[in-house]
Amino acid sequence: MEQLIFGVDVGATMIKIGLFENNGTLVKKWSIPTRKKGAFFLEDLTADLQREMNERDLAADDILGIGIGVPGAVRDGRLVEALTNIGSGIPDIRQTLDRRLGIDRIMLANDANAAALGEMWKGAGRGCENLVMITLGTGVGGGIVLGGRILEGTFGAAGEIGHIKVRRREEESCGCGKHGCLEQYASATGVTRIAEKLLQEAREKDSQPADEKKSVLDDIDELMAKDVFDAAREGDELAEAAVDCACEALGRAMAAVACVVDPQIFVIGGGVSAAGQILLDGVRRYYKKYAFPASEETPIHLAELKNDAGIYGAAHLILED
Amino acid sequence: MEQLIFGVDVGATMIKIGLFENNGTLVKKWSIPTRKKGAFFLEDLTADLQREMNERDLAADDILGIGIGVPGAVRDGRLVEALTNIGSGIPDIRQTLDRRLGIDRIMLANDANAAALGEMWKGAGRGCENLVMITLGTGVGGGIVLGGRILEGTFGAAGEIGHIKVRRREEESCGCGKHGCLEQYASATGVTRIAEKLLQEAREKDSQPADEKKSVLDDIDELMAKDVFDAAREGDELAEAAVDCACEALGRAMAAVACVVDPQIFVIGGGVSAAGQILLDGVRRYYKKYAFPASEETPIHLAELKNDAGIYGAAHLILED
Repeated sequence: MEQLIFGVDVGATMIKIGLFENNGTLVKKWSIPTRKKGAFFLEDLTADLQREMNERDLAADDILGIGIGVPGAVRDGRLVEALTNIGSGIPDIRQTLDRRLGIDRIMLANDANAAALGEMWKGAGRGCENLVMITLGTGVGGGIVLGGRILEGTFGAAGEIGHIKVRRREEESCGCGKHGCLEQYASATGVTRIAEKLLQEAREKDSQPADEKKSVLDDIDELMAKDVFDAAREGDELAEAAVDCACEALGRAMAAVACVVDPQIFVIGGGVSAAGQILLDGVRRYYKKYAFPASEETPIHLAELKNDAGIYGAAHLILED
Repeated sequence: MEQLIFGVDVGATMIKIGLFENNGTLVKKWSIPTRKKGAFFLEDLTADLQREMNERDLAADDILGIGIGVPGAVRDGRLVEALTNIGSGIPDIRQTLDRRLGIDRIMLANDANAAALGEMWKGAGRGCENLVMITLGTGVGGGIVLGGRILEGTFGAAGEIGHIKVRRREEESCGCGKHGCLEQYASATGVTRIAEKLLQEAREKDSQPADEKKSVLDDIDELMAKDVFDAAREGDELAEAAVDCACEALGRAMAAVACVVDPQIFVIGGGVSAAGQILLDGVRRYYKKYAFPASEETPIHLAELKNDAGIYGAAHLILED
C-alpha cells in the first residue's frame, strides 16, 4: 500500500487535519477544537491521529510523515517562539509525536508559509515555484515560496508582509507595537477600524448638511469587514474609501515585495479575500501604480483552497527533498 | 597548475577585471575603458582577456571560467534587457567569449547582485549565506543572496530595492517613471536633490530673520552628496535634514526588505557609503524603528570590498554548484 501523509493546520480555535495520498489526493479531512495554554493541543492532536490510524488499521510504517503548520515562527523546522494565541511551554512537537506515534518524519512550518505552499501545490499557484501568498484574516500573514520551498528567514520572520510599513503617519499601534503596518489597514480588523474612523470623522463634522448622504455603515452595530465590502459594492462612498485604503496599502506593500523577491505570482487568501473582485481590482490597480516596471504585470490571483490551504501545504512539507 | 578565474565587472565607464585563484586570492586586477553603443565593449574585453592569457602563457584549460557582472537584468545567466548606459544590440556574451577564447564556463549576473555575492564571499558578509546588499551610487541598487546564491527573480527584478516606494507624496519622477522610490532620497543624486530642495525652500522664505543661520551648502556651486554629509557632520541643520531624509528612507525600505527575506545581515556599499558612521547611525536608528520586532537586531554593516566587490562576486559565480 502506498504510504499516506497527515497534513495538520493548528489554528487558534480549531486544529484542521487532512489525510492525503502522496500525489496530493485528499482522502479525508476533519477538525478538532484547539485546547489552549501549553501542551493540551498536542495531547489532543496525538490522540486524534492515533485514533485515526487505529480506525484505518494503519501502522507507523504506513504513514510517510506528518506535516504541521503552526501559528508561530519556525526555523529549520523548529518553533522559535510561543504559538500566538495558544501559549508557551510547548514541548518539542516533533519529538513528542515521534515518541507517541513512532513516526519520525515530522515537518513544521509557520501556518501562513504552509498555506503558501498549499496554494503552490494544489491551488492558485499550481505550476509556479516562486510564489508570494498574502493571507488577509484577523491579521495579515504572508508566505514566500522560492524554488518550491518555504523561505523561513534568519529569525523565522521572512514573509511577515503584514508588518511592512505603508504609512508614515499612524497614531494607533499595530499588534507588533509599531505604527503604520499593512495589517492595520488590510486585515479584517484593519478594514473595520478604518471604516469606523471615517464614520467617526463624518459624525464629528459640525456643518454637515442635512441632505448629505449618510453611510449605510452608520446603522450597523458591530461592523464587520464583509459589511464594508458589501456597502462599497453598492456604491456607499465611505465604505468605498475604506476599501480603497486597504487596496492602496496592499498594492503598495506587494510592490515592495516584488522589488525584493520578484515572484511569478501573488495569491491573496484569508477571510477578507472572500470580498473577491472588488478587492482584486483595487489591489491590481495600486500594485501596478507602485510596482517596478519590470514586474508590473505579475499576476495577482485569489487563493483557491480556502481553509484547506494549510493542510495541503503541511502535507507537502513531507514531500520536499 | 591550479585553474584561475576571471571576474569581470562591466561598468558604464570602465570594465574592471580581476584574475583570481579559486580560493579567492586576487592575483591581479586592472581596468579598461568601456566603449559604448553595442558590442564594442565585448570586443575590447575579449581582446584584453586574450592578451592577459597570452602574456601569462595560459591556455583555455588553465581558466576555470569567466564570471561577469553587467548593468542590466539577468535571468538564468542570460541578459534579459539592454545594458543600462551601454546599449542594446549586444550579442550573446557567453557564446561570444566561448567562441573567441575557447572557455565555456561563463556566468553572468546583474552587477549589484554580483557585488552582494562578493561581499558575502570576501567582504562584510563573510560567513553569511543570506545577505542583502544595498549599493548607494548614482542610483540605488540592491542584491539579495539566499543560501549562498543570487536571487534573480521572475523578471530579473529581485533586489531592485531602490524602487521600493517610501513616500506617498512625491511630485518628481524617479528614473523608473514612478514616484517616491528609495532611490529618489538615498542615492547620491537623491541626497543632493533633497538638499537643494531644502535650500530652495529656505531661500523662498519671505520673513527669514537676518540673523538666522544660513546653511554652508548655500555657498557651494555644484553640490555633491559628499558636501551634504560633510556639512551634516559639522552640525549644519539643513544638511542634517537631508541626511536624515536619506537615512529614514533607507531604514524604512530595509525594514520592508527584512519583512520579506529576513536576512542575516545588511551590507551598505557604493559611493555614498563613504559617508561612514553618520550614515550607518541614521540608518540603524530608523531600521530599528520600522523593523518587525523579530528582526530588529539584524546587523547593518558598511561594505568592505569597495569597488572590487563586483569582480570578487563575478569570480564567485564560477565556483557555484
